[in-house]
Amino acid sequence: MATHHFTPKVYYTAIGAHEPVLHIESGDTVLTTTVDNAGYDATDTQITERGNPQTGPFYIQSAEPGDTLAVHFDRIVPNRSIGRTSMTVAPNVLDPDYAASEMPEGGRGLAEWHVDVEKWTATLMTPETQLGELTLPLEPMVGCFGVAPPRGQAISTATSSTHGGNMDYRGFQEGVTVYFPVFVSGALFHLGDGHAVQGDGEIVGTGIEISFDVQFTVEVRKGKSINWPRAENSDYILTAGNARPLDQAVQHATTELLRWLDELGLEKRAAHTLLGQTVEYDMGNVFDPAYTMVCKIKKSILRDIGIM
Amino acid sequence: MATHHFTPKVYYTAIGAHEPVLHIESGDTVLTTTVDNAGYDATDTQITERGNPQTGPFYIQSAEPGDTLAVHFDRIVPNRSIGRTSMTVAPNVLDPDYAASEMPEGGRGLAEWHVDVEKWTATLMTPETQLGELTLPLEPMVGCFGVAPPRGQAISTATSSTHGGNMDYRGFQEGVTVYFPVFVSGALFHLGDGHAVQGDGEIVGTGIEISFDVQFTVEVRKGKSINWPRAENSDYILTAGNARPLDQAVQHATTELLRWLDELGLEKRAAHTLLGQTVEYDMGNVFDPAYTMVCKIKKSILRDIGIM
Amino acid sequence: MATHHFTPKVYYTAIGAHEPVLHIESGDTVLTTTVDNAGYDATDTQITERGNPQTGPFYIQSAEPGDTLAVHFDRIVPNRSIGRTSMTVAPNVLDPDYAASEMPEGGRGLAEWHVDVEKWTATLMTPETQLGELTLPLEPMVGCFGVAPPRGQAISTATSSTHGGNMDYRGFQEGVTVYFPVFVSGALFHLGDGHAVQGDGEIVGTGIEISFDVQFTVEVRKGKSINWPRAENSDYILTAGNARPLDQAVQHATTELLRWLDELGLEKRAAHTLLGQTVEYDMGNVFDPAYTMVCKIKKSILRDIGIM
Amino acid sequence: MATHHFTPKVYYTAIGAHEPVLHIESGDTVLTTTVDNAGYDATDTQITERGNPQTGPFYIQSAEPGDTLAVHFDRIVPNRSIGRTSMTVAPNVLDPDYAASEMPEGGRGLAEWHVDVEKWTATLMTPETQLGELTLPLEPMVGCFGVAPPRGQAISTATSSTHGGNMDYRGFQEGVTVYFPVFVSGALFHLGDGHAVQGDGEIVGTGIEISFDVQFTVEVRKGKSINWPRAENSDYILTAGNARPLDQAVQHATTELLRWLDELGLEKRAAHTLLGQTVEYDMGNVFDPAYTMVCKIKKSILRDIGIM
Repeated sequence: MATHHFTPKVYYTAIGAHEPVLHIESGDTVLTTTVDNAGYDATDTQITERGNPQTGPFYIQSAEPGDTLAVHFDRIVPNRSIGRTSMTVAPNVLDPDYAASEMPEGGRGLAEWHVDVEKWTATLMTPETQLGELTLPLEPMVGCFGVAPPRGQAISTATSSTHGGNMDYRGFQEGVTVYFPVFVSGALFHLGDGHAVQGDGEIVGTGIEISFDVQFTVEVRKGKSINWPRAENSDYILTAGNARPLDQAVQHATTELLRWLDELGLEKRAAHTLLGQTVEYDMGNVFDPAYTMVCKIKKSILRDIGIM
Repeated sequence: MATHHFTPKVYYTAIGAHEPVLHIESGDTVLTTTVDNAGYDATDTQITERGNPQTGPFYIQSAEPGDTLAVHFDRIVPNRSIGRTSMTVAPNVLDPDYAASEMPEGGRGLAEWHVDVEKWTATLMTPETQLGELTLPLEPMVGCFGVAPPRGQAISTATSSTHGGNMDYRGFQEGVTVYFPVFVSGALFHLGDGHAVQGDGEIVGTGIEISFDVQFTVEVRKGKSINWPRAENSDYILTAGNARPLDQAVQHATTELLRWLDELGLEKRAAHTLLGQTVEYDMGNVFDPAYTMVCKIKKSILRDIGIM
Repeated sequence: MATHHFTPKVYYTAIGAHEPVLHIESGDTVLTTTVDNAGYDATDTQITERGNPQTGPFYIQSAEPGDTLAVHFDRIVPNRSIGRTSMTVAPNVLDPDYAASEMPEGGRGLAEWHVDVEKWTATLMTPETQLGELTLPLEPMVGCFGVAPPRGQAISTATSSTHGGNMDYRGFQEGVTVYFPVFVSGALFHLGDGHAVQGDGEIVGTGIEISFDVQFTVEVRKGKSINWPRAENSDYILTAGNARPLDQAVQHATTELLRWLDELGLEKRAAHTLLGQTVEYDMGNVFDPAYTMVCKIKKSILRDIGIM
Repeated sequence: MATHHFTPKVYYTAIGAHEPVLHIESGDTVLTTTVDNAGYDATDTQITERGNPQTGPFYIQSAEPGDTLAVHFDRIVPNRSIGRTSMTVAPNVLDPDYAASEMPEGGRGLAEWHVDVEKWTATLMTPETQLGELTLPLEPMVGCFGVAPPRGQAISTATSSTHGGNMDYRGFQEGVTVYFPVFVSGALFHLGDGHAVQGDGEIVGTGIEISFDVQFTVEVRKGKSINWPRAENSDYILTAGNARPLDQAVQHATTELLRWLDELGLEKRAAHTLLGQTVEYDMGNVFDPAYTMVCKIKKSILRDIGIM
């Protein structure tokens, strides 16, 4: 149950079996930092190449293929006051005819936002638009994180799959516990791409991109095997499917939630009947090569039927 | 501003240019009933063929192609105590390999629920499962409704398109105002397929299917042209895109919301920047030939920037 | 086995249960004409509204729901010398980023082609481009044809489904026999949208659009029920699936070919093993709301294994 | 212009920046072997793990990021007489309801085929089915091959992307020249997964899987940058797009062919007009995480208009 203060010196833009930056034990806590999507740190200095550079990988002792790694986000806080967003909705989320004729002029410039962790707000500063000094409440979340994938792969932080990756789901915020399948010894946990605020889908290709102070705690569930990232917060258990089209992400997430209910002891027919009237879906990233859909059910319902 | 009490005698399972059952004026209110998806009425007697039979069409005087029809749901209340749901998640929302090997045995039987409008709950009665007498709060919504489509089409109530149809969106409940493009003289509004409760996506192919007492009020917006169904409630403005895959539904809904912001006077670059960090999506039907995705933004944000 | 000379006076842009223009018997032959996609006839005069206007519907005596209608195209010949094509690839078949920035200037103008049925060629006439007087061999095909759909629907000729419709498959040419499920009494066969030449996919939204002289012969297969359009020519049996995304069109077409092999007496395991190494696919329309994929197998192989 | 005889000792199931097995020059020829999809060699002995194990990577001197690597398949010949196929169409290419209820019994067993390179045939040997000793002409092709991907990635041989990979396209046979974007120094060419015969789409998840003797010749095109795999044979130039859904593979392939025509000097409007009436598509793999679609045009047409 040690606590590690870790200062990253190297960043990766693919999630894979890189040399671990730190070895930790199940139960340990890590305090570290992440740079933003473009490699800028807490001083807003670019210290590594752009593309969701990741802090890590962290090697978790005892994690072996077939286990599950639980990662609890204890604390996620922006560590600088400037954040940036794209100003253009991605053509792939617009009607093709509309995208071919109605895109805003002026290219893909960036807007700058003032992030105030005291007031817990982000305020649009430049450029000048009809939005004025639009101010939004902070909702910090980690856009891209996960474990080394199977089969010797290293997967770009531009996308996502069974190992996690660039899911950009607003629910991956402080207080959530995320579960990953372990594919390699040590699991090799990576994280980065912090957003101070983000709309559903990350449809402009960015949240309010910012560097973070992060604290997380890991735990290895030995011999517990899952197929897709799972998570829970105080109200829900949830599963994330990553694929294109979104229909397939729905298939992965729904199937994984049925598997979870099965593990909780719920017979299939009951599980299907239950999900039919109580399931909820949230949409994660629809900008990247793989899209993300989250399937979830309220814990209170699972308690009502006595399986949680 | 008349109020009409209308008792349906005929039902349609395609939305099209059928003989109107009632002519009403813009501003009028209609009190009527709907049968359930299988054609069963308030006495639980089958009086018409199954397949989301529709009450209507209602001819709204003055509605002409190029106008918009606003329909406000004043009241949506189940008018009987028995509701039914499917007990099997549709194979199309499951991983193909899983669906090919892991479906529950026992076919597609129906579960029966006791709907209590006093307690505002639905309780699972039969068959006996691990769910026991699972009780859920009512959240009545209209699954399928819309106007006659363009080009002389009549479109099955099993699916949806620009004219509305079987969208099965949980947000289409009491208090919402829904906007449809008018494609034919009189608009020809139809409605049916009431659900006492429904999970997102209608992934078992049914909500808690039930007959309704419905009260709605119509209003014609002359010369106001829209491309896809829109709606607003106390908190949000929203657009619905209907297509497969879900990606395309996202494209339609997002494009339509950009058009709406444009009509509200927001310049493109500002609209794109705004949606990027504030847009939200809800998933409608993923069971039918066309899927539904809803794109929405909070009215409070639009008020903040002075365009609402 | 009568032969009917039919001159159309009315055209429809939705395929549905319109008043029949002619009643014919199973075994009869019809000689008639079609206008082009924009409603222009053999004299290049617009006589009806644009949008793949259809000749028909033809009511085939004895055809009842649950039967199959066979339509053999005896002769398909352009009946005028001018054909027109779009000059712009549809944004939906291009990468979204490319479509948003790299479309050709000058809008969606039309090119004109000289169609010479003596030489059996089409030659590009205007506008002047680097293509010069590009000359292509004719390959006349019917873009849009089918029967009245089920459930009282009338479906736009801009799209396709189980009833046929706008499939734009190059294989639907002279000599092919196409099979449709019969959904209404009389089947109600429609046809139109002739192309003198067309690339796969109709990716510019048009072939070389032209009016046709057409001769076809119908036959009712009583009590024979199919799910999707099927066809055969001298070399292949084939099935057409119509849906989006293409993946789903592949699913429909492949499933229908398995059903056909089953009807021919091939046991499932054998059918799966056979298709794995011998199946072929052709791509139909990828411009319309529903895309088309064709799944086929050589008749010679079926003869080799003794089931044809 | 050296010729290398290379005997592989190691195989990879991800395509990435592994230690090169051989350094060669642009213009050199390599004679080598590939094991089958399951790691079985010319003696039908399993010598490495299953999953399309790759021979290579070959480091081509002078190849640098931004160049193009041309690989010409001089000779592709099965080097043993036993080949194996799956006997079950993949559920993902079947209608979900059909796949959930109509799959053949008996699981995913393998059929064995006798491959005779003298007669140039493959004959089904076991199990006994209605297909008897079905005999098909050989059409050897390489299922999975490509170069190290960008961003430090290593991508599973179960899938495909801009770097090539598991495309399973029947046109990748002897005599074809395939072009890959170079993402890393030396390009790092891998190849494996030979099929003696394969149906379009590899819908059972296998061709007739077999080990190969392969001869290929490489050439580096300095400073020539492409986005997706391209190829040419005696009759066609073609591009391959790899993604899901197939619609997106169509987008990638079509866009890449437009880029190619642009490089050949054809102005956009002419290129769009040309493709509209002359483009052809072939379907590659529809079994893997990424599907493949090929877009092509006849060289004879390009010669007619003077750009080839």
